[in-house]
Amino acid sequence: MPHLDLDLDAVTLTEQLVNIESVSQDERAIADAVEAALRPLDHLTVTRHGHTVVARTDLGRGERVVIAGHLDTVPVNDNLPARREGDLLHGLGTCDMKGGDAVILRLAKHVTEPNRDVTFILYEAEEIDAEFNGLTKLSASNPELMTGDFAILMEPSNAVVEAGCQGTLRVDVRTTGERAHSARSWKGVNAIHKASGILARLEQYDARRPVIDGLEYHEGLNAVFIRGGVAGNVLPDECVVEVNFRFAPDRSEAEAEQFVRDFFDGYDVTLTDSAPGALPGLDVPAAKAFVEAVGGEVNPKFGWTDVARFTGLGVPAVNFGPGDPMLAHKQEEHVPVEHIERCERLLRTWLGAGS
Amino acid sequence: MPHLDLDLDAVTLTEQLVNIESVSQDERAIADAVEAALRPLDHLTVTRHGHTVVARTDLGRGERVVIAGHLDTVPVNDNLPARREGDLLHGLGTCDMKGGDAVILRLAKHVTEPNRDVTFILYEAEEIDAEFNGLTKLSASNPELMTGDFAILMEPSNAVVEAGCQGTLRVDVRTTGERAHSARSWKGVNAIHKASGILARLEQYDARRPVIDGLEYHEGLNAVFIRGGVAGNVLPDECVVEVNFRFAPDRSEAEAEQFVRDFFDGYDVTLTDSAPGALPGLDVPAAKAFVEAVGGEVNPKFGWTDVARFTGLGVPAVNFGPGDPMLAHKQEEHVPVEHIERCERLLRTWLGAGS
Repeated sequence: MPHLDLDLDAVTLTEQLVNIESVSQDERAIADAVEAALRPLDHLTVTRHGHTVVARTDLGRGERVVIAGHLDTVPVNDNLPARREGDLLHGLGTCDMKGGDAVILRLAKHVTEPNRDVTFILYEAEEIDAEFNGLTKLSASNPELMTGDFAILMEPSNAVVEAGCQGTLRVDVRTTGERAHSARSWKGVNAIHKASGILARLEQYDARRPVIDGLEYHEGLNAVFIRGGVAGNVLPDECVVEVNFRFAPDRSEAEAEQFVRDFFDGYDVTLTDSAPGALPGLDVPAAKAFVEAVGGEVNPKFGWTDVARFTGLGVPAVNFGPGDPMLAHKQEEHVPVEHIERCERLLRTWLGAGS
Repeated sequence: MPHLDLDLDAVTLTEQLVNIESVSQDERAIADAVEAALRPLDHLTVTRHGHTVVARTDLGRGERVVIAGHLDTVPVNDNLPARREGDLLHGLGTCDMKGGDAVILRLAKHVTEPNRDVTFILYEAEEIDAEFNGLTKLSASNPELMTGDFAILMEPSNAVVEAGCQGTLRVDVRTTGERAHSARSWKGVNAIHKASGILARLEQYDARRPVIDGLEYHEGLNAVFIRGGVAGNVLPDECVVEVNFRFAPDRSEAEAEQFVRDFFDGYDVTLTDSAPGALPGLDVPAAKAFVEAVGGEVNPKFGWTDVARFTGLGVPAVNFGPGDPMLAHKQEEHVPVEHIERCERLLRTWLGAGS
């Protein structure tokens, strides 16, 4: 079993974590290593749930914070093992999000008497369908382990707080026609031609940019797939445009769906996927205090993250982790060493330990 | 080896041919059976070229006519064996075009002293890419076997002459954009949205219907495929619309291509496939005489057929065969018995034999 040494600095520990390959649904080795590293620590109660590991302090503090990171990565793309070059650490998962995981593990071991109780969660399968997600499973089997006054998801956010997240939904917008031999096209109805109006509306779409708690979100409505066609000599009888709507967290899922249905009024619209956004929640005292403790800067989170899951459980949550989210899922993903160090330092201080 | 009995009536012979499965590139058995049935006939010179069989009279007549039919079919679709129901024969290939093949075989055997020399060609692989087509191969290896004063292709045409054929070409019309995460779509350019203008032009297309030699053709410009998309959360950087142009035979391939390029002016257009049309050629005496002999009625041929290949070799050609072309390639394909009988009777008479 690969070994993790939590006494190493967080950057070297990130490197160790990166070198344990852990593509979604192949997290056994990394979860075993994480569990083995945490299990001996007397100040923590450690439990295992599938390939998700939870470690909690129980000091009877007035407040509890959840600090969470996923252990899986997107597929390998010729970007392993980790490689350090000057101030950057390169490799799959360096940015998304083993730098954050390393910080979590360091805090778990070394902040033995935090000023607030902490639940550390290192979980499986964030990069694939929600049904496999370790937090989905944990919220079903042990919801008590996810509760707290505040949650920090260590998703890459340039080591600055990114608050809330936008929601996302997907619809299939469909046209139908009637097949005919293309040599006698007047006998049929071309469904691809009928999709012209769908694309015209998308082209004219004007994105809403609402300001919520002082943060400017930015919606987006995009065709992500289009398909149609039967054979090279046949008029197609169906065309499907798959559309992804990223919506600001002031809309509910139902409102977002209604917006899309109205937008494509007159077309056949089928909802295929939906996840709610999360309001920034910066008016909650625990969130406000955290933002102040880590420097006061806050950006809106455009992508969907598991903060929405915590918000759904009534736990205010923010993203705060090393790495540039624009690099996530890219072959050339990397993380600045300084981001890892800064996150660890700021979180240690916030938890009442010396830096 | 399956046996063909050319003394049976043409309808029963059609049934025998249908029951020898011969999907494109699997024509060995049917070609063997055809060759074995023709080889013993003293008045014919029989040659074999791949799975194409050629049988010629050589009586020194003043005129030579080519009568041709393909032996292959589109894939089986739960429509074998042949099934006779009243006045219809059902099954794969009954219409396209073993009814015509049966007539050819009957003429080859029983019209031993035709008033014009005849080259009968039963060929392979018409239903797939042109490179495999028996006539493509024959025109390369033995072009002399395809020459004549006139050619009849026994493609389904409701037992009425269908003259000329429309040309066909295919282009890929492409848009490009720039990938970005769909949560930050303003960082990229959506190639699918840009295809809106391509579809809008197709929707507004107004088909030309030129009258040539008294026959009204009918052009058609249709998207037959559309594709684009990278992942459910990524702005697509490419969208391709595959467009099929069916053009009347008064345009050359080059003119047709230019029309399409002008039509999609401003877009990236790549020609992927092209086949010329064939003018009806009804001013040629041999064609005129044939039309009169079989009843005087002539319709335009909208689909592309191998008549274009003969026209390209300088041999005027028409389509004349049993079956409704609208039923070709359909699961429920069938042929009226009366069509087969009428074609045989009219061709026998035209070749100077009693009916």
